[in-house]
Amino acid sequence: MSDHIPAHLETLLKLHPADLADQLQRLPAEEAGALLRQLPKETAAAVLAEAEKEKLPDLLAVFSSTQLAELFQQLPSGDAVDLLPHLPAARRREALAAVPPDRAGEVKSLMRYPEDSAGGIMDSRFIALRDNMTVEQVRELLRARAQKERIEDVAYLYVTDAQGRLVGIVSLRDLVFRRADRRIGEIMNRDVKLVRATDDQEAVARQFEHYHYLGLPVLDAGDRLVGVVKASDALAIARREATEDMQLMVGLSGEERALTPWRKAIGRRLPWLLINLLTAFAAAAVIGFFESTIAKWTALAVFLPIIAGQGGNAGMQTLTIIIRDLALGEISPGDGRKALAKELMLGLINGLAVGLIVGLVGYLWKGSLALGLVALAAMVLNQLAAAAAGVVIPFGLKAIRVDPALASSIFVTTVTDVAGFFFFLGLAVLAMRWGGF
Amino acid sequence: MSDHIPAHLETLLKLHPADLADQLQRLPAEEAGALLRQLPKETAAAVLAEAEKEKLPDLLAVFSSTQLAELFQQLPSGDAVDLLPHLPAARRREALAAVPPDRAGEVKSLMRYPEDSAGGIMDSRFIALRDNMTVEQVRELLRARAQKERIEDVAYLYVTDAQGRLVGIVSLRDLVFRRADRRIGEIMNRDVKLVRATDDQEAVARQFEHYHYLGLPVLDAGDRLVGVVKASDALAIARREATEDMQLMVGLSGEERALTPWRKAIGRRLPWLLINLLTAFAAAAVIGFFESTIAKWTALAVFLPIIAGQGGNAGMQTLTIIIRDLALGEISPGDGRKALAKELMLGLINGLAVGLIVGLVGYLWKGSLALGLVALAAMVLNQLAAAAAGVVIPFGLKAIRVDPALASSIFVTTVTDVAGFFFFLGLAVLAMRWGGF
Repeated sequence: MSDHIPAHLETLLKLHPADLADQLQRLPAEEAGALLRQLPKETAAAVLAEAEKEKLPDLLAVFSSTQLAELFQQLPSGDAVDLLPHLPAARRREALAAVPPDRAGEVKSLMRYPEDSAGGIMDSRFIALRDNMTVEQVRELLRARAQKERIEDVAYLYVTDAQGRLVGIVSLRDLVFRRADRRIGEIMNRDVKLVRATDDQEAVARQFEHYHYLGLPVLDAGDRLVGVVKASDALAIARREATEDMQLMVGLSGEERALTPWRKAIGRRLPWLLINLLTAFAAAAVIGFFESTIAKWTALAVFLPIIAGQGGNAGMQTLTIIIRDLALGEISPGDGRKALAKELMLGLINGLAVGLIVGLVGYLWKGSLALGLVALAAMVLNQLAAAAAGVVIPFGLKAIRVDPALASSIFVTTVTDVAGFFFFLGLAVLAMRWGGF
Repeated sequence: MSDHIPAHLETLLKLHPADLADQLQRLPAEEAGALLRQLPKETAAAVLAEAEKEKLPDLLAVFSSTQLAELFQQLPSGDAVDLLPHLPAARRREALAAVPPDRAGEVKSLMRYPEDSAGGIMDSRFIALRDNMTVEQVRELLRARAQKERIEDVAYLYVTDAQGRLVGIVSLRDLVFRRADRRIGEIMNRDVKLVRATDDQEAVARQFEHYHYLGLPVLDAGDRLVGVVKASDALAIARREATEDMQLMVGLSGEERALTPWRKAIGRRLPWLLINLLTAFAAAAVIGFFESTIAKWTALAVFLPIIAGQGGNAGMQTLTIIIRDLALGEISPGDGRKALAKELMLGLINGLAVGLIVGLVGYLWKGSLALGLVALAAMVLNQLAAAAAGVVIPFGLKAIRVDPALASSIFVTTVTDVAGFFFFLGLAVLAMRWGGF
């Protein structure tokens, strides 16, 4: 970790740390590690903060515990905390022991918050003012701070009382615009929008989206200011959370990417396929139950995938809309009944429209009115089942505090397969009994 | 639009405009309109900027064209532009005619950019400096501006040349920290990250995520600064885009919510169900082709949904990962081959694992080794088909410049249905011919 910079590094050093991290990650692990060690420690720290989780164990391995401690000091505590899980436990303790006690305490206190809470994503370095300071004093303070350390993009300054409790907010704009002798207490805004350290990161993202702020203060249970979350940090999280729902729905871990090695992916995908297999056996058992009916009239087998497939597609439409709105907080659990009424109405209309076409095809193909009517009725009933499953399953999962997206597409298509086969073959048996076939 | 405030409005006026908009939207249209007219015009304008698109025609209807022109002047041009499509064409012209020419020109020039481009989401009100100004002069300028109009949260100031071309960036922090007599040209950062007005909003969101900036300058084709995008605006967009992909995948318009009236939803959902129906007929035709085979051995019908369903589930897993990574820019079109290799490997392993179970069940249930082997082979082949379809379909849609998410789940499950039925029944025919059954 030399601070003398060899010539071949100079072009790299002109890059933004995020871009530099991208470049390093494309290199083989040893080469990336060797380059990282040659960077000035401030840059190396910034690159580590931007690097992908999967690459961190290799990248961190090239540093001694003392070097790691130095790197941690260059980083916001939140970023330092994010690096820790990627170190072996023994090295983690060594590195933390080498960090000055106050910084180490800060890092440890941050580790109390879950990774996906406001406390887990916040930056614990913020600038707190007292209300009896003047605008000029604050300007002085900021100048002094800026010489000692790199101050990240700051949009707001927070005002706390003697106990560290948040009492107001001042924007940097105010410091520029206001007269030098004005007191902070006079110019600060007391109506501060805030989040709690234990709030879920999803709720934090929603606040940003609703109020369009550049940053939000984070308070602990005692109303003390403990950190700040930036809009751009919430952005990265919100995108990941939103797309995670897509993955959960189809039975995927949110951490898999297109180029994740197959050895890692297999352990996460196969279990869901096996669960899906169990449900497929349930659907197949319904067909097995009616095997003698199919033996009498094999044309029935041709219609089975149509009835079930249309139900599955409609159920996925309903499910996707419900999950999205639950995730974005655009419907509350109390709206379930209204959503269900809407979906049942859509199911009825779609079922009649699609069912008439399928029924007509059945009638024309085999010249059997009974086959057509059975297909129509089964289609309508299965569209209603799809609507009900698409609403009830995510709301139900939410009620028992499970992520509404979790493998819900498997559950919904199980309902539409089982119900579709049962309605169609069951109605066919009745039609045969009444002599229709 | 009286500026005298009745007592019952006072509690409402203490709310943030975003919250006030939420409250108003829950009221019947006339009541909301009446309240809106009583708000001070600055507040009314801010509420309109926060209101939901669907409510805008009703809310805007209560104002005369002159009143609308006054409201537009209270808003950033970008927000004013967003309101225009919700006015009838004649009123739009009247309102624009009543806006002072320079603001109207600004609004009209913004209308050139597509709604989902950087130009469409940017705020065209920004503070541009010249490089020969001193820090003190800039402070004076900002103070003067702040008295005339409400300056939104500003994190950066931009430096332009005589032609309005962007040459540098100064953060508000610099204005606080730097000596009053320093020249902007000396302290500005010349290495500015920027976006083009025609860039897709998705690309803008990706820049924010990558660099963690609070704002990004927007340049036109002549490198002139034309606006600024804030991180929090990009956040709202990114979340919506990400969840839109989920909806597109299953054949839904991105604009439908859980409580969208069914009359509006039906016209958007039914066409996709009908397309799905066409593909279902294709799959059914495969079964119809093998009807005589099923007549000989109806147990085959029981296995059809298992082979097809497992393929559909695996295909959805692959598809979801590819679409997510394409949307987040985490894989490039050149990575398609690597992703395909990974998915085929997963398909082989999953196919063998699931196929062995299904084959064993088939063997034990009917005592036919041939049935078990046919089920195993069809399962492996269909898992490989699912992997190929899950990669090739989204990459193919992207190559022909169609959104890779568009109804792609319908295409993928068509492949897995058709291929699953064909492999299973086709192999069964071969097995029968060889005397296996």
